[in-house]
This record gives sequence, structure tokens and C-alpha cells, in this order.
Amino acid sequence: MREVAIIGAGMIPFGRRDQDTLLDMLAYASLKALDDAGLGDKSVDAVYVANMGAGMLQHQTAIASALVDRLSLLPAAADAIENGPASGASAIKNGLLAVASGYYNLVLVAGGEKMREVTGWKATDFVATMTHPEVEYPYGITLPGMAGMFTRLYMEKYGVTREQLVDVAIKNQKMGALNPYAHVEMAITKEGIMDSRDAVVNNPVAADPLHLYDLCPVSDGAAAVILCPLDLAKKIAPKTPVLVAGFGQATDTHTLQERDDPTELKAVQLAAQQAFERAKLKPADMDVAELHDAFTILEIAESEQVGFFKKGEGGKAASAGKTGLGGQIPINMSGGLKARGHPVGATGVAQVVEVVFQLRHELEKNRQVKDAKNGFTINFGGFGNNVVAFVLRRVEA
Amino acid sequence: MREVAIIGAGMIPFGRRDQDTLLDMLAYASLKALDDAGLGDKSVDAVYVANMGAGMLQHQTAIASALVDRLSLLPAAADAIENGPASGASAIKNGLLAVASGYYNLVLVAGGEKMREVTGWKATDFVATMTHPEVEYPYGITLPGMAGMFTRLYMEKYGVTREQLVDVAIKNQKMGALNPYAHVEMAITKEGIMDSRDAVVNNPVAADPLHLYDLCPVSDGAAAVILCPLDLAKKIAPKTPVLVAGFGQATDTHTLQERDDPTELKAVQLAAQQAFERAKLKPADMDVAELHDAFTILEIAESEQVGFFKKGEGGKAASAGKTGLGGQIPINMSGGLKARGHPVGATGVAQVVEVVFQLRHELEKNRQVKDAKNGFTINFGGFGNNVVAFVLRRVEA
Repeated sequence: MREVAIIGAGMIPFGRRDQDTLLDMLAYASLKALDDAGLGDKSVDAVYVANMGAGMLQHQTAIASALVDRLSLLPAAADAIENGPASGASAIKNGLLAVASGYYNLVLVAGGEKMREVTGWKATDFVATMTHPEVEYPYGITLPGMAGMFTRLYMEKYGVTREQLVDVAIKNQKMGALNPYAHVEMAITKEGIMDSRDAVVNNPVAADPLHLYDLCPVSDGAAAVILCPLDLAKKIAPKTPVLVAGFGQATDTHTLQERDDPTELKAVQLAAQQAFERAKLKPADMDVAELHDAFTILEIAESEQVGFFKKGEGGKAASAGKTGLGGQIPINMSGGLKARGHPVGATGVAQVVEVVFQLRHELEKNRQVKDAKNGFTINFGGFGNNVVAFVLRRVEA
Repeated sequence: MREVAIIGAGMIPFGRRDQDTLLDMLAYASLKALDDAGLGDKSVDAVYVANMGAGMLQHQTAIASALVDRLSLLPAAADAIENGPASGASAIKNGLLAVASGYYNLVLVAGGEKMREVTGWKATDFVATMTHPEVEYPYGITLPGMAGMFTRLYMEKYGVTREQLVDVAIKNQKMGALNPYAHVEMAITKEGIMDSRDAVVNNPVAADPLHLYDLCPVSDGAAAVILCPLDLAKKIAPKTPVLVAGFGQATDTHTLQERDDPTELKAVQLAAQQAFERAKLKPADMDVAELHDAFTILEIAESEQVGFFKKGEGGKAASAGKTGLGGQIPINMSGGLKARGHPVGATGVAQVVEVVFQLRHELEKNRQVKDAKNGFTINFGGFGNNVVAFVLRRVEA
């Protein structure tokens, strides 16, 4: 199997993008990635599009065929990949397999979602379509509902506190405010969302014990990367290539209720383990990570489950600044889903784009992890029932 | 790159399956394929699900995660693939790349669609979501509408006659009546649908010059195959393995209007060419083919475009029986989309399942192509804007 590298990465600012169609957003992000890879007139061999909701939200299918035409990349092969909120990482995985197989050389992977066509309960309902169609969805469970129950269990079993959750939210919004691609640009304070009388109004309960600021926003957005064999990358890439050193993907019970211990995110653990093994690296070798913080509790739980901290230590580590810039393992220096936003099909690609920027050392000082060599991502599908992990490594000249 | 073989194939009867959910259908077909491959307790490494409309039709996403759980195949990787009506072949292609890459050994590919939730104009509208979202869909064009215009052009340029179209329909319904998996089980006659007074009522105009019997029905259904490296196949397969000797995938302009000559199906030609080249075989080497006859004209046009007949000769060949059992190249011995039915996500997989049955020589005499060694499929996305082709070869012991 051939080693595969990322030679281009691009994204558009996430947020409310009423003026753009889904296809516009995918095209803008793709053009930025193609340009970043210096491909000029070179055509790509295959295109993967990550998207979860175009059928439901835009009444549109065959989005990959539409994109390859819009970008004048005909007759490249084109497929759309769906794995709920982990669609982005699944698409990158399939692009990776396509290159590793030897059949394709240059592959574009673009992820996008135009979610703000629906807001409020309709957005929550859209996301809930990924729950079990027989034993979950008809009974009204939603993803925030699951996250609330998960948080309560986690608090009871491991002593995670509301303050620790708030510390994650504050860190991620602070970093988001520094990231030009982030949806939420506003830094927040403990006083504003927890310690003052106003906090009751500013930060109401969303899914007890989670409050509004524990949840990611509903965003539009798109991101893209270009993959090719490492050998080719060394020849043609105008910027430092980033090796996809390892990947992992694992599934868990579709419903939360069937897990022996619902606080164990087995698919997160397995996917991370596979990725580290393939990369021949350990959690401690990672310099930067993007975790799937659709809810603040998930950043804490994942930071333990992938091996950055022991079980029960993730919340304390967050409050102690170990996951901030300059800390033991800087997590979500992009602002994460919490602040960058979570256009579901785009998220897994945006995580990889952020890590590529980090490993190329091209971010502003206030976000750049110094001398970062190895990066890690977790993209979390369903409520942890289909998880994809990547270990990325800077290719030194 | 490793050679990849099919060691299991299964499908459920297509038709109206009100009693089953989409997940039921996918699970039944998958179990048949797993059983056919003799896998017993062996787990698969990855699952691909081909589906186009679950979001829109079933208000359901993350169907691949749901299937892998239903089948107790955890923690296998699982992704859904969408490429309109070519989703099935796209999923098999991605399964093939996954095995060829060396990362996965046993891969299940299941395609399914529960389309009869919508009928009449709503079914036509569902399918039309694959047209261009800006310059086609808003103006009311539908797939039958495109096929009608395409047929008129083809008739004028190449002299295809209505009788030739009817001959395709008669052949395919005859074969469908012999196929226990086919939706339409009724043989038809030229008198009944063309030459009698009753024909006006039996077979009204649908999209001029196409009549009702030129169109495939709206069907529910699912089909599945198991892929693995050829070396492993030779060791573990209880039945004759079938090599995926070649594949091709090509895109064309998303809209029909932008093509220099709309009667040229460039993506069909390119995909077929790639598949033949990779297999080191020619069209004349094929013993049996499944073409994408969503409309009778497409079987004729594709039979020319892939190289079975010269341009303008496909219609005559069909009327002369050259595409029937015992003819030069038996096409759609399953009944094709026309009679087996066209549950969009399932079709590409069902085509491959049929060819696997043919190449294993296990069909009833009235459908079996004698001593078939090489088979061919075309799965046609959009109106020919994203096409996937396979060349399959019987692996002799």
C-alpha cells in the first residue's frame, strides 16, 4: 500500500451563509484546496464529497456529480460519502484508500453542509435522523438529549464538574475568536456564562446538565483537502506535505442504551488505537489535536478515551490549562465544533485542514502550536457509533 | 494493488415491500450474501451501503452505522455511498479500492432503496433531485422528460424505431418473468403494447416518444456482495469466485444541454473503456451484460456506446435477437431495470449479483448464458453524468 499525503487544504469561513448554495460552498473550499496544492491546470482523478443532509435540506442528490462539473474536473470519478457528522473523515478515509490502492493519484475531498436552512427544533430534528429509526427516533430522543444523559453519568462516575465544562467552552470560544474561519467569534468569560446573575439568561439549560454554551452552533460551511501518493507529494507540493500516517474507523452499538457502560466510547478508543498503531506513534507523541466537541463533555471524554489523559482526569486537565496553547496537548486550537461551528458534512474535513495548517506552521502565533510535528483528529458519528481518527505527520524536507 | 474477487452475492425480490423497512431489506440481502460466501462467524472489516434517498424518503441518515449494528458486525468500518442511480456500483468500486489498498480484507457492500413510500409524481420528483439544482430542477425537467428528448434525437439521428424500443421491453419483461427476484413478472406482447386498439390504453405515452412500457417501475429492493482479495477468495470461497477484472468510472456535464452531441454518452464510453483496459479484455470477449435500461432507449444506446454494436446498430441488433439468450451478447437476462425494477441504491449491486450468478453457472437453463466466462455491467448516474462500469471474470478452479 502506498503512503498518502495531503498537499492542499482549504476552507471557507463557517457561519450563516445565506448567499451561497451548498454547491457554491463546496466549490469555494475546493478551489482553495486546489490552489493551495498548486495544481493549476492539472486535473484530479477522483472527487469525494462528504455531506449528510442535501437530500433532506436542499432536496438535492448527486452532489458529487454536480461539484465535479462545476469545478471543470470532468471526467474525474465522483462519489458522495455519508456517515452522519463523521462524513468528512469518512470521505477522507475513502480518498486515502483510493490513493493507497494505486488506482488514483490526485484526489479531492470536499465536505460541506448548508444547515441553516433549518434552525431551532428543525435543526435538532435533522440531526436526530441519525439516531436509531425504530428504538430511538420515534421516542423523541435528540443528540443534545443523549449528550445531557451522558454528561450526567460522566459527572456521577468521574466527578466532572460544570466548571470544567465551562472551562472547555471558554477555551474553545477564545480560540474560535482568533480563527478567521470560525462561526462564533465571541470570547466568553466564566462570569458571563456561569458566575453572575446574567448567566441564567445568557446561558440557560439546554439539555440538563448541559447549558447553551456547552453546545455547538448550527452552521453552514465547507472544507477541502487534496490527497496524493507521498512520492508524488514530495515532487509537486509547493508547501510542506502532511503524511496521513494512520487512520482508524470503528463502529459501536447504534443505540446508547445497549452499551455495557455508556460512559465508555469504545468506537473512539478503537479508532484512535488503529490510527496510532498504523502510524507507529503514541498519544504522547501528538503535538496538537482536533476532537469532536459537539458538546463540551465530548472533548473531555474523548481526550481520555484516546489516551491523552487517564479516565477521570480530562476535566481537571482542561481546567488546569493542559489542553490550551502551550499546554501538554493543545486541543481544538481552531475553536473546535463549539466555536468553528459544525456543518456536519464539513466538520471532519475542517478538522484535518486545521491540523494541516498547524503542521505546516503557518498560523498566527496566537493559535500556532510551536514546532508541531504530529497531529490527531477524532470525527464522531452518531453518538459515538461510527468514529474515524487520523494521525497526521509533518513531512520534513 | 491486490486483485479483488466477489465471493458472495445475494438479493431479495424487488417490488413492493411495504412490510419491510429499508434497514430490514439491507439486512436480508446482506445476510444472503454473507451466507453465500460461507462466512459463518467470520466478521467483515468494512461495510459500504449504497443508498440515494433515505434522508428524503425515510427521514433517516447514518444508515451504514445502523446496518453494521443490525448485522452484529461491530466494530467494522461503515460508510454510505451516494451517486444517484449509480450508487450501487460506486459502493462496489469503493469496496474494491478498500480491498485493493491492502487495508481491508473482507468487505460487505449492500445497496438498497425503499422507493414506494412515494409514487406517481412524487417518485418522479424524488428522482429529479439528481438533476442540476439551478438550471434543470427549478424548470421542471424530470428524468423521463430527458429520456424522451434523448429518444427523439436518437430516432432522428440513427433511425431507431418505436418497434425496436418495444422489442427491448418485450425481451426484458420476458426475462424478468423468469427471474424470481424481478418486480415485474408479466411477459408482454407486441400486440398488447403496440399493435392493437388496446395498446393505446395499455401503453399510453409517458414522455413522448416513450410509452409507459419503455420505463422502469418504481421498486423497493436490496442486493449485496462480499469482496475480498483474490488470493483469500481461492482459499475460503465455497463457490466459484468472480474476479473484478476491471472497473471504470467517468463523469460528464451535469446537464444534458451542455453536451456537444447529446446522443453521445461520453461517460458511458469512458467508463467502459477504462474497465476493458484494466481487465485487458474487449467488448467482444463479454459473454453476458447488464446494462442500465431505466428507459428502453438506454439499453440500445449503451449497447452501442460500450462497443457491443456500432452506432446506429443497437436497435436493429435488439430486434434481430442478438441481445437475447443465445444471441451475440445477451443483455439484461435478469430483466434489467425495466423488469427487475430500479430501487436506485440497489440497482448497481443487483446488476453485479446477476452477473455473479451467471458466471457461476447457477441459474435455471431458461436464463443461464451457457459457459459464461466474462460479464459486464453499466450503472448510469444522473442522465449519464456519472457512470460506473465493471468487467467481471469467472475464476476457474
